[in-house]
Amino acid sequence: MLEPVNVKQKLASFDEHWVPKVIAELNGQQVKVAKLKGEYVWHRHANEDELFLVVEGELELHVRGDGRDGVVTLKPGELYVVPRGVEHKPVARESSHVLVFEPASTRNTGDVDNEYTIEAEDLERI
Amino acid sequence: MLEPVNVKQKLASFDEHWVPKVIAELNGQQVKVAKLKGEYVWHRHANEDELFLVVEGELELHVRGDGRDGVVTLKPGELYVVPRGVEHKPVARESSHVLVFEPASTRNTGDVDNEYTIEAEDLERI
Repeated sequence: MLEPVNVKQKLASFDEHWVPKVIAELNGQQVKVAKLKGEYVWHRHANEDELFLVVEGELELHVRGDGRDGVVTLKPGELYVVPRGVEHKPVARESSHVLVFEPASTRNTGDVDNEYTIEAEDLERI
Repeated sequence: MLEPVNVKQKLASFDEHWVPKVIAELNGQQVKVAKLKGEYVWHRHANEDELFLVVEGELELHVRGDGRDGVVTLKPGELYVVPRGVEHKPVARESSHVLVFEPASTRNTGDVDNEYTIEAEDLERI
Protein backbone atom coordinates (compact mmCIF):
# COMPACT_ATOMS: atom_id res chain seq x y z
CA MET A 1 0.00 0.00 0.00
CA LEU A 2 3.06 2.26 0.24
CA GLU A 3 4.73 1.09 -2.95
CA PRO A 4 5.24 3.55 -5.79
CA VAL A 5 4.23 2.48 -9.28
CA ASN A 6 7.19 2.66 -11.66
CA VAL A 7 5.83 3.35 -15.15
CA LYS A 8 8.85 2.08 -17.11
CA GLN A 9 9.07 -1.08 -14.95
CA LYS A 10 5.42 -1.78 -15.69
CA LEU A 11 6.06 -1.30 -19.40
CA ALA A 12 9.07 -3.63 -19.23
CA SER A 13 6.92 -6.39 -17.74
CA PHE A 14 5.11 -7.31 -20.96
CA ASP A 15 5.71 -7.51 -24.70
CA GLU A 16 2.33 -7.40 -26.43
CA HIS A 17 1.41 -4.43 -28.56
CA TRP A 18 -2.03 -2.76 -28.52
CA VAL A 19 -2.99 -4.44 -25.22
CA PRO A 20 -3.50 -1.75 -22.55
CA LYS A 21 -2.74 -2.75 -18.95
CA VAL A 22 -4.18 -0.92 -15.96
CA ILE A 23 -1.54 0.38 -13.52
CA ALA A 24 -3.65 2.71 -11.32
CA GLU A 25 -7.26 3.69 -10.70
CA LEU A 26 -8.76 6.84 -9.22
CA ASN A 27 -12.02 8.74 -9.35
CA GLY A 28 -13.57 6.29 -11.82
CA GLN A 29 -10.62 6.83 -14.14
CA GLN A 30 -7.77 4.49 -15.00
CA VAL A 31 -4.11 4.98 -15.78
CA LYS A 32 -3.01 2.45 -18.38
CA VAL A 33 0.22 1.68 -20.15
CA ALA A 34 0.53 0.20 -23.61
CA LYS A 35 3.08 -0.59 -26.27
CA LEU A 36 2.03 0.49 -29.74
CA LYS A 37 3.50 -0.44 -33.10
CA GLY A 38 2.05 0.02 -36.55
CA GLU A 39 -1.31 1.50 -37.51
CA TYR A 40 -4.33 1.13 -35.28
CA VAL A 41 -7.90 1.57 -36.49
CA TRP A 42 -9.90 4.75 -36.78
CA HIS A 43 -12.36 4.86 -33.88
CA ARG A 44 -13.98 7.22 -31.44
CA HIS A 45 -15.28 7.14 -27.90
CA ALA A 46 -18.76 8.65 -27.65
CA ASN A 47 -18.54 9.51 -23.95
CA GLU A 48 -14.89 9.53 -22.97
CA ASP A 49 -12.05 12.01 -23.45
CA GLU A 50 -8.75 10.15 -23.75
CA LEU A 51 -5.28 11.37 -22.78
CA PHE A 52 -2.12 9.96 -24.36
CA LEU A 53 1.29 10.67 -22.82
CA VAL A 54 4.32 9.25 -24.62
CA VAL A 55 6.93 7.61 -22.38
CA GLU A 56 9.25 6.27 -25.07
CA GLY A 57 9.32 6.40 -28.86
CA GLU A 58 6.99 8.54 -30.93
CA LEU A 59 3.25 8.43 -31.52
CA GLU A 60 1.22 9.98 -34.30
CA LEU A 61 -2.37 10.68 -33.38
CA HIS A 62 -4.37 11.09 -36.57
CA VAL A 63 -7.55 12.95 -35.69
CA ARG A 64 -10.62 14.08 -37.60
CA GLY A 65 -13.81 15.79 -36.59
CA ASP A 66 -14.67 18.79 -34.40
CA GLY A 67 -12.36 21.00 -36.46
CA ARG A 68 -9.29 18.96 -35.58
CA ASP A 69 -8.38 17.30 -38.86
CA GLY A 70 -4.70 16.46 -38.92
CA VAL A 71 -1.90 14.68 -37.14
CA VAL A 72 -0.46 15.35 -33.69
CA THR A 73 3.03 13.91 -33.24
CA LEU A 74 3.95 13.15 -29.64
CA LYS A 75 7.49 12.62 -28.39
CA PRO A 76 8.47 11.48 -24.88
CA GLY A 77 7.04 13.77 -22.22
CA GLU A 78 4.36 15.13 -24.54
CA LEU A 79 0.64 14.57 -24.13
CA TYR A 80 -2.58 15.20 -26.03
CA VAL A 81 -6.24 14.89 -25.12
CA VAL A 82 -8.56 13.44 -27.77
CA PRO A 83 -12.01 14.76 -26.84
CA ARG A 84 -15.01 12.46 -26.84
CA GLY A 85 -16.56 12.08 -30.25
CA VAL A 86 -13.39 12.92 -32.16
CA GLU A 87 -12.25 10.12 -34.45
CA HIS A 88 -8.64 9.13 -34.01
CA LYS A 89 -6.11 6.59 -35.22
CA PRO A 90 -2.87 6.04 -33.31
CA VAL A 91 0.12 5.27 -35.55
CA ALA A 92 3.54 4.26 -34.23
CA ARG A 93 6.26 3.95 -36.87
CA GLU A 94 8.48 2.18 -34.32
CA SER A 95 7.47 0.62 -31.02
CA SER A 96 6.10 3.38 -28.83
CA HIS A 97 5.37 3.22 -25.09
CA VAL A 98 2.49 5.29 -23.82
CA LEU A 99 0.55 6.12 -20.70
CA VAL A 100 -3.20 6.60 -21.15
CA PHE A 101 -5.56 8.31 -18.73
CA GLU A 102 -9.27 7.81 -19.31
CA PRO A 103 -12.52 6.70 -17.64
CA ALA A 104 -12.62 3.09 -16.48
CA SER A 105 -15.54 2.57 -18.88
CA THR A 106 -13.42 3.25 -21.99
CA ARG A 107 -13.39 0.48 -24.59
CA ASN A 108 -10.03 0.37 -26.41
CA THR A 109 -11.47 0.36 -29.94
CA GLY A 110 -14.41 2.62 -29.06
CA ASP A 111 -17.25 2.20 -31.54
CA VAL A 112 -15.35 -0.38 -33.63
CA ASP A 113 -15.23 -4.15 -33.15
CA ASN A 114 -12.12 -5.88 -34.40
CA GLU A 115 -9.26 -8.15 -33.41
CA TYR A 116 -7.88 -5.49 -31.06
CA THR A 117 -11.08 -5.11 -29.08
CA ILE A 118 -10.90 -5.87 -25.35
CA GLU A 119 -13.91 -5.06 -23.20
CA ALA A 120 -13.05 -2.57 -20.46
CA GLU A 121 -13.81 -5.02 -17.65
CA ASP A 122 -11.41 -7.59 -19.14
CA LEU A 123 -8.29 -5.40 -19.08
CA GLU A 124 -5.41 -6.86 -17.12
CA ARG A 125 -4.19 -5.04 -14.00
CA ILE A 126 -0.44 -5.19 -13.55
CA MET B 1 -5.96 22.32 -31.44
CA LEU B 2 -3.33 19.93 -32.84
CA GLU B 3 -0.52 21.01 -30.58
CA PRO B 4 0.99 18.53 -28.15
CA VAL B 5 1.46 19.62 -24.55
CA ASN B 6 5.10 19.29 -23.51
CA VAL B 7 5.20 18.62 -19.76
CA LYS B 8 8.79 19.78 -19.17
CA GLN B 9 8.27 22.91 -21.25
CA LYS B 10 5.22 23.76 -19.15
CA LEU B 11 7.26 23.23 -15.97
CA ALA B 12 10.04 25.44 -17.33
CA SER B 13 7.59 28.29 -17.89
CA PHE B 14 7.21 29.27 -14.22
CA ASP B 15 9.25 29.41 -11.03
CA GLU B 16 6.81 29.42 -8.10
CA HIS B 17 6.68 26.46 -5.77
CA TRP B 18 3.45 24.92 -4.45
CA VAL B 19 1.34 26.67 -7.11
CA PRO B 20 -0.28 24.03 -9.35
CA LYS B 21 -0.96 25.03 -12.96
CA VAL B 22 -3.52 23.28 -15.15
CA ILE B 23 -2.10 21.91 -18.42
CA ALA B 24 -4.99 19.68 -19.60
CA GLU B 25 -8.59 18.85 -18.74
CA LEU B 26 -10.69 15.78 -19.48
CA ASN B 27 -13.72 14.00 -18.09
CA GLY B 28 -14.06 16.47 -15.22
CA GLN B 29 -10.45 15.80 -14.23
CA GLN B 30 -7.41 18.01 -14.59
CA VAL B 31 -3.76 17.40 -15.30
CA LYS B 32 -1.64 19.85 -13.35
CA VAL B 33 2.06 20.48 -12.99
CA ALA B 34 3.75 21.92 -9.94
CA LYS B 35 7.17 22.59 -8.49
CA LEU B 36 7.53 21.52 -4.88
CA LYS B 37 10.24 22.36 -2.38
CA GLY B 38 10.23 21.93 1.37
CA GLU B 39 7.45 20.58 3.58
CA TYR B 40 3.82 21.08 2.72
CA VAL B 41 1.00 20.79 5.24
CA TRP B 42 -0.86 17.67 6.31
CA HIS B 43 -4.26 17.69 4.62
CA ARG B 44 -6.81 15.42 3.02
CA HIS B 45 -9.38 15.56 0.26
CA ALA B 46 -12.73 14.20 1.40
CA ASN B 47 -14.00 13.35 -2.09
CA GLU B 48 -11.02 13.20 -4.42
CA ASP B 49 -8.33 10.61 -5.07
CA GLU B 50 -5.09 12.33 -6.10
CA LEU B 51 -2.33 10.98 -8.33
CA PHE B 52 1.24 12.27 -8.13
CA LEU B 53 3.76 11.43 -10.88
CA VAL B 54 7.29 12.72 -10.42
CA VAL B 55 8.88 14.27 -13.50
CA GLU B 56 12.12 15.52 -11.96
CA GLY B 57 13.67 15.33 -8.49
CA GLU B 58 12.25 13.29 -5.65
CA LEU B 59 9.05 13.54 -3.66
CA GLU B 60 8.20 12.03 -0.29
CA LEU B 61 4.51 11.50 0.28
CA HIS B 62 3.91 11.14 4.00
CA VAL B 63 0.56 9.40 4.45
CA ARG B 64 -1.56 8.40 7.43
CA GLY B 65 -4.94 6.78 7.78
CA ASP B 66 -6.69 3.86 6.08
CA GLY B 67 -3.86 1.53 7.10
CA ARG B 68 -1.28 3.46 5.08
CA ASP B 69 0.89 5.05 7.74
CA GLY B 70 4.34 5.74 6.34
CA VAL B 71 6.26 7.45 3.59
CA VAL B 72 6.20 6.74 -0.14
CA THR B 73 9.28 8.05 -1.93
CA LEU B 74 8.77 8.79 -5.62
CA LYS B 75 11.54 9.20 -8.15
CA PRO B 76 11.13 10.34 -11.78
CA GLY B 77 8.69 8.11 -13.65
CA GLU B 78 7.07 6.85 -10.45
CA LEU B 79 3.51 7.55 -9.38
CA TYR B 80 1.27 7.03 -6.37
CA VAL B 81 -2.44 7.50 -5.77
CA VAL B 82 -3.48 9.02 -2.45
CA PRO B 83 -7.07 7.83 -1.94
CA ARG B 84 -9.75 10.24 -0.78
CA GLY B 85 -9.83 10.66 2.97
CA VAL B 86 -6.19 9.68 3.48
CA GLU B 87 -4.15 12.42 5.12
CA HIS B 88 -0.95 13.28 3.31
CA LYS B 89 1.94 15.71 3.40
CA PRO B 90 4.21 16.12 0.37
CA VAL B 91 7.86 16.79 1.26
CA ALA B 92 10.52 17.66 -1.32
CA ARG B 93 14.08 17.84 0.05
CA GLU B 94 15.19 19.53 -3.18
CA SER B 95 13.04 21.18 -5.83
CA SER B 96 10.81 18.48 -7.30
CA HIS B 97 8.68 18.71 -10.44
CA VAL B 98 5.45 16.76 -10.47
CA LEU B 99 2.42 16.04 -12.58
CA VAL B 100 -0.89 15.65 -10.72
CA PHE B 101 -4.13 14.01 -11.98
CA GLU B 102 -7.22 14.76 -9.98
CA PRO B 103 -10.81 15.99 -10.27
CA ALA B 104 -11.23 19.61 -11.33
CA SER B 105 -12.95 20.21 -7.99
CA THR B 106 -9.82 19.44 -5.95
CA ARG B 107 -8.66 22.19 -3.57
CA ASN B 108 -4.87 22.15 -3.23
CA THR B 109 -4.80 22.18 0.58
CA GLY B 110 -7.92 20.05 0.95
CA ASP B 111 -9.55 20.56 4.34
CA VAL B 112 -6.89 23.04 5.49
CA ASP B 113 -6.81 26.81 4.96
CA ASN B 114 -3.39 28.41 4.90
CA GLU B 115 -1.07 30.58 2.84
CA TYR B 116 -0.82 27.89 0.15
CA THR B 117 -4.57 27.65 -0.41
CA ILE B 118 -5.82 28.43 -3.91
CA GLU B 119 -9.45 27.75 -4.71
CA ALA B 120 -9.84 25.25 -7.55
CA GLU B 121 -11.52 27.75 -9.85
CA ASP B 122 -8.65 30.21 -9.44
CA LEU B 123 -5.89 27.91 -10.70
CA GLU B 124 -3.95 29.25 -13.64
CA ARG B 125 -4.14 27.42 -16.97
CA ILE B 126 -0.88 27.42 -18.85
